[in-house]
Amino acid sequence: MTISPSSIFKDIETIRKTAPLVHNITNYVVMNTTANALLALGASPVMAHALPEVEEMAAMAGALVINIGTLSEAWIQAMFKAVKKAASRNIPIVLDPVGVGATRYRTRTARELIRAAAPSIIRGNGSEIMALCDQGRTTKGVDSTSASGLAVDAAKTLARESGSVVCVTGAIDYIVSATAVIEIKNGHSMMPRVTGLGCTATALCGAFAAVNPDMAGAAAHAMAVMGIAGEMAAEHAPGPGTLQVNFIDCLYRLSEAHIQDRLKR
Amino acid sequence: MTISPSSIFKDIETIRKTAPLVHNITNYVVMNTTANALLALGASPVMAHALPEVEEMAAMAGALVINIGTLSEAWIQAMFKAVKKAASRNIPIVLDPVGVGATRYRTRTARELIRAAAPSIIRGNGSEIMALCDQGRTTKGVDSTSASGLAVDAAKTLARESGSVVCVTGAIDYIVSATAVIEIKNGHSMMPRVTGLGCTATALCGAFAAVNPDMAGAAAHAMAVMGIAGEMAAEHAPGPGTLQVNFIDCLYRLSEAHIQDRLKR
Amino acid sequence: MTISPSSIFKDIETIRKTAPLVHNITNYVVMNTTANALLALGASPVMAHALPEVEEMAAMAGALVINIGTLSEAWIQAMFKAVKKAASRNIPIVLDPVGVGATRYRTRTARELIRAAAPSIIRGNGSEIMALCDQGRTTKGVDSTSASGLAVDAAKTLARESGSVVCVTGAIDYIVSATAVIEIKNGHSMMPRVTGLGCTATALCGAFAAVNPDMAGAAAHAMAVMGIAGEMAAEHAPGPGTLQVNFIDCLYRLSEAHIQDRLKR
Repeated sequence: MTISPSSIFKDIETIRKTAPLVHNITNYVVMNTTANALLALGASPVMAHALPEVEEMAAMAGALVINIGTLSEAWIQAMFKAVKKAASRNIPIVLDPVGVGATRYRTRTARELIRAAAPSIIRGNGSEIMALCDQGRTTKGVDSTSASGLAVDAAKTLARESGSVVCVTGAIDYIVSATAVIEIKNGHSMMPRVTGLGCTATALCGAFAAVNPDMAGAAAHAMAVMGIAGEMAAEHAPGPGTLQVNFIDCLYRLSEAHIQDRLKR
Repeated sequence: MTISPSSIFKDIETIRKTAPLVHNITNYVVMNTTANALLALGASPVMAHALPEVEEMAAMAGALVINIGTLSEAWIQAMFKAVKKAASRNIPIVLDPVGVGATRYRTRTARELIRAAAPSIIRGNGSEIMALCDQGRTTKGVDSTSASGLAVDAAKTLARESGSVVCVTGAIDYIVSATAVIEIKNGHSMMPRVTGLGCTATALCGAFAAVNPDMAGAAAHAMAVMGIAGEMAAEHAPGPGTLQVNFIDCLYRLSEAHIQDRLKR
Repeated sequence: MTISPSSIFKDIETIRKTAPLVHNITNYVVMNTTANALLALGASPVMAHALPEVEEMAAMAGALVINIGTLSEAWIQAMFKAVKKAASRNIPIVLDPVGVGATRYRTRTARELIRAAAPSIIRGNGSEIMALCDQGRTTKGVDSTSASGLAVDAAKTLARESGSVVCVTGAIDYIVSATAVIEIKNGHSMMPRVTGLGCTATALCGAFAAVNPDMAGAAAHAMAVMGIAGEMAAEHAPGPGTLQVNFIDCLYRLSEAHIQDRLKR
């Protein structure tokens, strides 16, 4: 898979033309902002978490996004039901293990979800991916002298064991599959000051995975779009309030020229 | 009922002066944005969904807004309790059947809510209104050659059977009562790219219904205000992020002159 | 405790340097906006409400914020578990009794929460504080001829009985402890038109209380920052949509000079 401005923009055009339905079972904090990001990109978001309807909704979707940011028992049950349905239909499942490592409840739930149906893509920050992987089993590789190196090592272990593409996001985003690591170096330092941009990155993975059968490519495209739109949004933003608004505008207006000018790998 | 800039603005002034309490049992995605829209218009929103308190809250409200966008069992129970209380007090009930037709759970819940207490106003897009009406029974009228014609036919059937005013929103908004159809042609093509503006339209119906005893008039006024504020908001919006922010500002600043300049029927 | 621009800015610098973890169990309406406000100020928000994890989360936090805006049974249980854990660790507990007085459910829940573990800070508007206090027992003091005077009297009673610092917010904010009343006169009349700015004030109390052992000082600093950022945000805001966005930017950019120029006591 070669990531290029044209490969990225081809996916964006497909999303804009086909408006894939992305079924999200996500957290309360980001429901509005991730729905808006998906709409701005050109996808069709739906949020549904009730046990009686999650299977029907997942049966119509082009991708399923599971985000454990504000868990509770009923929602976990719905997540399991939805991922099983999605797996039976072979549609992409994207998992955001928000806060894994912070509480045992989150760590256990995320691991069980992965066992129930291997996600196509798992996206988290370094500490989440390391917690998910269970440090003890991580091969200490060449990059392990740095924090991101440790996270990439954990991602490699996780990718090998789960078969998932694992996305470790931070100043540099690493898209780790069983066979390769893609790096995306776009983004802006103010982005972590906006709540839920990580969750938005995960949701965009869902949109790209719905139109691109190569999961590493889809994830890399999503990360490039996040980073580029974030940079553009930050350029005229006096603070994170404006950045959040501009970011949605930039997703909506993103052109191939924007990507050509800015993509950093 | 004649809809005019002055009839619309008269209601806005009443809302601004009396700040009617609008009790919302709505979905997680739009709670923040619909509360902000109601506040910007001049109404007093309250969100409350707990079984032990919904009756007390509905007992104080000037209107009740029910939105099934992110359903679950406990919320459905609260919705039934609230609509019965509202009906017993003869305050307007506004229903937004989000996603009806997408899952049987939503279709069944919306229909049962309508049976439990006929809404004063039902607002949805064409496919929701058609799904709600149960296509089979729809009289195929003169407009049925177009998609919106089919939806208006469904709305007429639904209005006749439920006694509700049925609002079908889209490029043109149709406000359908047992005896008449009002058309509002305001709005902007970027509005569907902002999540929850349909839900906001429903919430504004609640505010207008709280101050105007004519439900068709209240719904038409709400749709006109939505469309006009949306057009104004889109004028200087590079994308849907800015549109969402501007829209709230425009609701807040809306004058009779704005309405006179822009109302399209 | 003397409140000054330098005492306020010293706390802000500490928040920016140490990024205290603020654990919020709050309402659906404001989760996104309060998380963004905490991030913009420099704190680290986390939202978690599941019974199996609230103790672990509260055990890591620098402060716990409880907001009863959209109550339900499961959330109440989690609130009790979390406040007990927070009390056992002696970290600040901040309570926002949203809508107390509107329904018996809210009034009872807020009072029981206070009895379970006395909050460090209680922040509400005048009517909430009066309802919480149980009017009957309020000493009618010298200020009682005005509405805010009645609320301050109620706050004094509540502060004496609970040991909490009680913050009554409105055009003037009163920070009431057993021994003193601090007044903050900043703010802007458009602020009540943005949903959840009261909840944001409460969340910011959590951030300040996490870094400042003097609870009256922490609450007064939070109120000053709210009011000053709100004034700055309103200056170039045509309406509450823009105000909400600017407010986040202003929290992010707030300097000691801004505070010196604007603090009104």
